[in-house]
Amino acid sequence: MTDLHTIEQANASFYALFESANIDGMANLWVNTEEVWCTHPGWPTIFGWDQVRVSFEQIFSGPELPQFLTSNVRFHGDEQTAWVFLEENLLGTSLSAVAAVNVFKKQEGVWNMVGHQAAPLIPDLDFRSD
Amino acid sequence: MTDLHTIEQANASFYALFESANIDGMANLWVNTEEVWCTHPGWPTIFGWDQVRVSFEQIFSGPELPQFLTSNVRFHGDEQTAWVFLEENLLGTSLSAVAAVNVFKKQEGVWNMVGHQAAPLIPDLDFRSD
Repeated sequence: MTDLHTIEQANASFYALFESANIDGMANLWVNTEEVWCTHPGWPTIFGWDQVRVSFEQIFSGPELPQFLTSNVRFHGDEQTAWVFLEENLLGTSLSAVAAVNVFKKQEGVWNMVGHQAAPLIPDLDFRSD
Repeated sequence: MTDLHTIEQANASFYALFESANIDGMANLWVNTEEVWCTHPGWPTIFGWDQVRVSFEQIFSGPELPQFLTSNVRFHGDEQTAWVFLEENLLGTSLSAVAAVNVFKKQEGVWNMVGHQAAPLIPDLDFRSD
């Protein structure tokens, strides 16, 4: 992946903007069209930038702004699409950790965020067979 | 999306194979390389077909085989990649519902599964600001 450093920066900026409740920065980072999607942990998936923006505004105005310690970061992708897999260790919320994937798309030379899904990690879940 | 019907069938077969614990069918449905990933609900993300296969074998040998009622199915994509967003309503497990995304890739005319993430839906999660 030739743009790895740029993608690393875009991914880091997502968390910096989140921690600082920077909605304008989020709007610059994300693709602002109907094609985007976002699954906040525990929420149904939201589609389209207008709705995703509202969801961030709701979170940013809430009582708990998370801090993120990211780990196990892994990059997949090609020239046009990048997938960043990582675990978000959350401080300051009732969640402890989530398995997340952030998807970026290159358009006119710029990598913008097009998707985010965060799946809560559940200790001792009965669904596991081990 | 020109191949919508084929993608619908591939997506439906994922759940049929899951419910019938058909590991050979899963191996045929998925891309069998390192590029695949899978986030079972509550688990960390698993990478590569060998590990994903082991995870299905573990689930299939466990006490609870889920039954899936899918809803709110939505398709995104282009000629090479398809994203199927949906909610899985689970019967027969301790989970009630997850927000899922299934990703398919077209290779040599065939749509194979390359990624799956299932994020548990959590009622009344404190992370929500409303």
